[in-house]
Amino acid sequence: MPYLITGIPKDPKHPLPIRKDIDDWYLEQTSAGSNRIQLTLFVEALTVIQNRPLNDQLSYFRLAGIHGAPWTEWDGVPGGQKDSKGNPTGFCVHNNYTFPTWHRVYVTLYEQVIYEAMLDFIKQNVPQNGKADWENEAKQWRLPYWDFARFARHGHDNTQGDELRLPILVTMPMVKVLVPGQPGKQLSKPNPLYRFQMQTLMGTLERPYAITSQKTEEHGWSFDLPFDKCQSTTKYGLLENYNADVWADGGQNWLRANLALNEHPWYQNLDGWASVPTLQDMTFRLLTTGGLNWGEFSSTRYDDKKEEAQPKNNEQAPKNWMNLEAIHNNVHNWVGGFMFSRPGRHDLKLWGAGHMSSVPVAAFDPIFWLHHWLTAIWQTVNSGSWFNDDKSKVSKDDDLRPFHRFCEKTRKVVFFRSDDVKDWRSLNYDYAITKDASRIRKEISDLYGQRTKEVYKDFGEEDYILSIRYSRYALGGKPFQINIFFGDVDGKDFYDARSQNFVGSVFNFSGSLEDSNCDKCAQQEQEGVLSVSQLPARLAVHYYKKQNKGEVPTPRYVVVNSQGKAEAEVKVEVALHKTEVFHSVDSESWDLRMEHTHCFSTHGMGGHYHYDTTAEVVEYEAWLNTAKVIYRIDQPGQ
Amino acid sequence: MPYLITGIPKDPKHPLPIRKDIDDWYLEQTSAGSNRIQLTLFVEALTVIQNRPLNDQLSYFRLAGIHGAPWTEWDGVPGGQKDSKGNPTGFCVHNNYTFPTWHRVYVTLYEQVIYEAMLDFIKQNVPQNGKADWENEAKQWRLPYWDFARFARHGHDNTQGDELRLPILVTMPMVKVLVPGQPGKQLSKPNPLYRFQMQTLMGTLERPYAITSQKTEEHGWSFDLPFDKCQSTTKYGLLENYNADVWADGGQNWLRANLALNEHPWYQNLDGWASVPTLQDMTFRLLTTGGLNWGEFSSTRYDDKKEEAQPKNNEQAPKNWMNLEAIHNNVHNWVGGFMFSRPGRHDLKLWGAGHMSSVPVAAFDPIFWLHHWLTAIWQTVNSGSWFNDDKSKVSKDDDLRPFHRFCEKTRKVVFFRSDDVKDWRSLNYDYAITKDASRIRKEISDLYGQRTKEVYKDFGEEDYILSIRYSRYALGGKPFQINIFFGDVDGKDFYDARSQNFVGSVFNFSGSLEDSNCDKCAQQEQEGVLSVSQLPARLAVHYYKKQNKGEVPTPRYVVVNSQGKAEAEVKVEVALHKTEVFHSVDSESWDLRMEHTHCFSTHGMGGHYHYDTTAEVVEYEAWLNTAKVIYRIDQPGQ
Ligand SMILES: [Cu+2]
Ligand SMILES: [Cu+2]
Repeated sequence: MPYLITGIPKDPKHPLPIRKDIDDWYLEQTSAGSNRIQLTLFVEALTVIQNRPLNDQLSYFRLAGIHGAPWTEWDGVPGGQKDSKGNPTGFCVHNNYTFPTWHRVYVTLYEQVIYEAMLDFIKQNVPQNGKADWENEAKQWRLPYWDFARFARHGHDNTQGDELRLPILVTMPMVKVLVPGQPGKQLSKPNPLYRFQMQTLMGTLERPYAITSQKTEEHGWSFDLPFDKCQSTTKYGLLENYNADVWADGGQNWLRANLALNEHPWYQNLDGWASVPTLQDMTFRLLTTGGLNWGEFSSTRYDDKKEEAQPKNNEQAPKNWMNLEAIHNNVHNWVGGFMFSRPGRHDLKLWGAGHMSSVPVAAFDPIFWLHHWLTAIWQTVNSGSWFNDDKSKVSKDDDLRPFHRFCEKTRKVVFFRSDDVKDWRSLNYDYAITKDASRIRKEISDLYGQRTKEVYKDFGEEDYILSIRYSRYALGGKPFQINIFFGDVDGKDFYDARSQNFVGSVFNFSGSLEDSNCDKCAQQEQEGVLSVSQLPARLAVHYYKKQNKGEVPTPRYVVVNSQGKAEAEVKVEVALHKTEVFHSVDSESWDLRMEHTHCFSTHGMGGHYHYDTTAEVVEYEAWLNTAKVIYRIDQPGQ
Repeated sequence: MPYLITGIPKDPKHPLPIRKDIDDWYLEQTSAGSNRIQLTLFVEALTVIQNRPLNDQLSYFRLAGIHGAPWTEWDGVPGGQKDSKGNPTGFCVHNNYTFPTWHRVYVTLYEQVIYEAMLDFIKQNVPQNGKADWENEAKQWRLPYWDFARFARHGHDNTQGDELRLPILVTMPMVKVLVPGQPGKQLSKPNPLYRFQMQTLMGTLERPYAITSQKTEEHGWSFDLPFDKCQSTTKYGLLENYNADVWADGGQNWLRANLALNEHPWYQNLDGWASVPTLQDMTFRLLTTGGLNWGEFSSTRYDDKKEEAQPKNNEQAPKNWMNLEAIHNNVHNWVGGFMFSRPGRHDLKLWGAGHMSSVPVAAFDPIFWLHHWLTAIWQTVNSGSWFNDDKSKVSKDDDLRPFHRFCEKTRKVVFFRSDDVKDWRSLNYDYAITKDASRIRKEISDLYGQRTKEVYKDFGEEDYILSIRYSRYALGGKPFQINIFFGDVDGKDFYDARSQNFVGSVFNFSGSLEDSNCDKCAQQEQEGVLSVSQLPARLAVHYYKKQNKGEVPTPRYVVVNSQGKAEAEVKVEVALHKTEVFHSVDSESWDLRMEHTHCFSTHGMGGHYHYDTTAEVVEYEAWLNTAKVIYRIDQPGQ
């Protein structure tokens, strides 16, 4: 009998429970007067699941294994699908249009399994007179999520800080929980959200579950990190030339991860400008860029039909290259770290690799399950965009394997498809922010738009973005990071956000080839499947112009591999674009600036376009997008 | 009955055992074919000690408490001595001439207590037929030490790396040990060297053992770090504005510590020069600078009689300001971290504080006991220097409280004095490097001098050092770091080795006032007890000169407090000195460069002093030191 994914059953007595920001939820649970029951249940249930034997498909190991390694079957569906080269791939979908929907079902499965373990725990441990309370808490619980793009709040006063961080609960080795039946007693227990730890090295697990370290230099699926030597998941703890006993439990270097999350160029402070974490800025842009279709939003996958329709040159409007998966890929990199070898012989920058940065093992780190939440927000502000373009339409009816549901109509057990989870509420959860569509834009602005607003206010309306197009498999599937620079690149120091002239980075998050057996995909892979991303560059351009007499920078890039070496052979297309708000009408008398706009191009034809032209006739030619709605947040200052 | 410190009893059947480098020892214990018994015994014994109740003075907590907090009695000796202001101080001795000898007895006590716990463990756990083997291993065991100044070797092939690191064993949360009586079986256990963890927050321990957080802004003993909120020791895990539950077990951010240990200026790579970790360079200089007396070597304490004898100006030869305690203070800082608040509002540099950087709680971190070893090496190459100057002589007969020994002559139990441990071998241990005095200089050069030799070879014989004189209690006992710069100091970025123009740093390692009740000391404290240090500056000066047409830099400094703020009021004396080798004779025909030397001064009278002078008479005036011995390492290149 297959395992049927339904989400946590809906309790008709209560409104639909919400998935809460995990810091908010933790503070709620641990505040004075709180009963701490949900926290206890989550910790106890996850501990049980993590300790289940490997032959139990509802064990943490087997659930995490669906995402990639060890490529075994799940729920009767053969795992380890082979790509055209015969290399195994996971069930999961990256660089494809079902990326958000596949992960939506996946996280719901996890939530459901935890809920069921909670009920078991209550049955076995909670005295009769407390059972109803505990069961009610379980029913109201939903898996919390980690809002990686909002500034962290660590205090019970809910004060907003000014940096991005891993969740409180993820950085604590131990956690205090209740002891059922012993009122007032709290026990310190190992925190199952801190890491996933096994009894032995993951490379020595019984077959077919052993996690292997792969060393392949050929084109094809490949990585060479020693995950087989790990007994625990790690963040930044895999470092070449360190003793293997250190790798076994390389630790959760969350201080390093926090630094990375706030990736920002070194020069931002120089002029008294506050920094803008790229991650927050990208998230804000993704959620506020209008007119993206599903194919553009959902995946890094580059739609080759676009290339035919629009000339491949720097004038091409790149706004469509902003996407969910690109943001998500960077988070994987910044949480786990991908650089196994020290960059530069005598350069002692921070380095280290971990599970989150490697597709085949990413889901073993318990933080994995907390960071897939953004799609529902985007859907709420883009309700018409659902597999609504030629490319993504084709994937709409793809089976989301190996996830089963019961089809009421046919009375059969079938695989999920994207349409089945278009409305996440059908999986019996919601988010606070998506409950009221009329307030969501204000909330998005409050959560992610405050810092940019503050920093950008002196720069007028000139905005700049970088578009990046690359082959995800350029290194045969091995991970790499594309670092973008304005101005000269230091030949010895090009690794990260602290490097001179650094603007931002793109991570390929690769470790497996695309999950597809079709001829077309095989062909794409041989040609090099293309992926796209976008980086905000407003601050960097303004800084560069200030330093260089108003000159607009030419972007440069370095592709860095997990050995910290530059991959000079890998070609990436990087272009800088100016995006301009051009108001053609002020129908609501909102005091819009109608009088002029600016554009630029790289062929010398940019300029200052103003309404008081002196010539009789002026002809403008430009790539323009039309805004469908204008939202007024507040009155412009005088 | 007092606890008598003797060291581990000598086994007449065997030569005197040595304390081994802990990485070497760990690799030995875990190599193929090794029996792993000593590792098991060390882990099991230390675990037992860490779990002893607080009223047991041989518990880890009480042993660590001798060093500072919670200022209780030990071995019947009243703790919490009061300074002239009535603030408690620990038994331990800093900024004084018994600093090395007090810590020598302290570490021996620890070693002895562990040894005794080993014997207990064997008695209770090892089957009869194995007891002799295990007991023999215990008898041969000595507490390993952490050579923080040598490049780490993490592999069984003993290959030398090119960076300084925390020991392997200190960075592993779990460690594999034997199970006595079950041959071949190994068990993964929590590693007591990774951290010291208690059952509750240290601030909630029963009185008088509760560890408090002190907030004092007045002149006097003061610190304001939340060690009361810690359940475990931490490295860099105390961060302001983080949730207190994160502080409880803030983690061992050894990746951050490793970065700090290799503190080196950002520009070192720019010209293809390898980096020279300040720590290694300082250690090498301390061990190879001839002619230091005990008072100069042993402590940061500034000998005010020197000031009378020599004019206080930049010509004063500063070589005597290099000392053991200054090096040791920096290690405390780099291992634990002292910056509790984030430096700069939007500056996301790495920060965080931990136990090792704070005198009152430093000994609670298990790494504390591994880093006191340098004195024996220095004694071996400076065998005549033992309390051999006017100042240190006075402290020679100070009681090393609260450490007791049995005096054979008087048949009484007395406190240790420095003379009792002048020969560390009388405490029944030795070091490999100190066993053969004839080879020790070669070994010092191999361990600590290779990198400088390689890097400095292009710079001729011009050497530069910085001398620093400061008041340890300038912030009323609160910790601070003095950062030295050549050239401009960035007003917003002056925190650490990554800051522009950074040369090196000095840490005051303060948290308690000087352990003394004499009027003179009270007066000194009120005047501000002075401490001195020295930093190597050869690479920095050469870089600066190259960038600035040969100009010699003027050193600048910033005093940074644990809030990441500059303390503009704190005055520090910093001077740059050129030290020159001036060969007056080449009696052995070693091909010494006799023909010329260079000097400089800050009053414009430096120059090029050459033997082919054209004037009839030339008079040179200089501060010179005479070399007693010249060691020839190898033939100079052509
Ligand atoms: Cu994923
Ligand atoms: Cu000390």
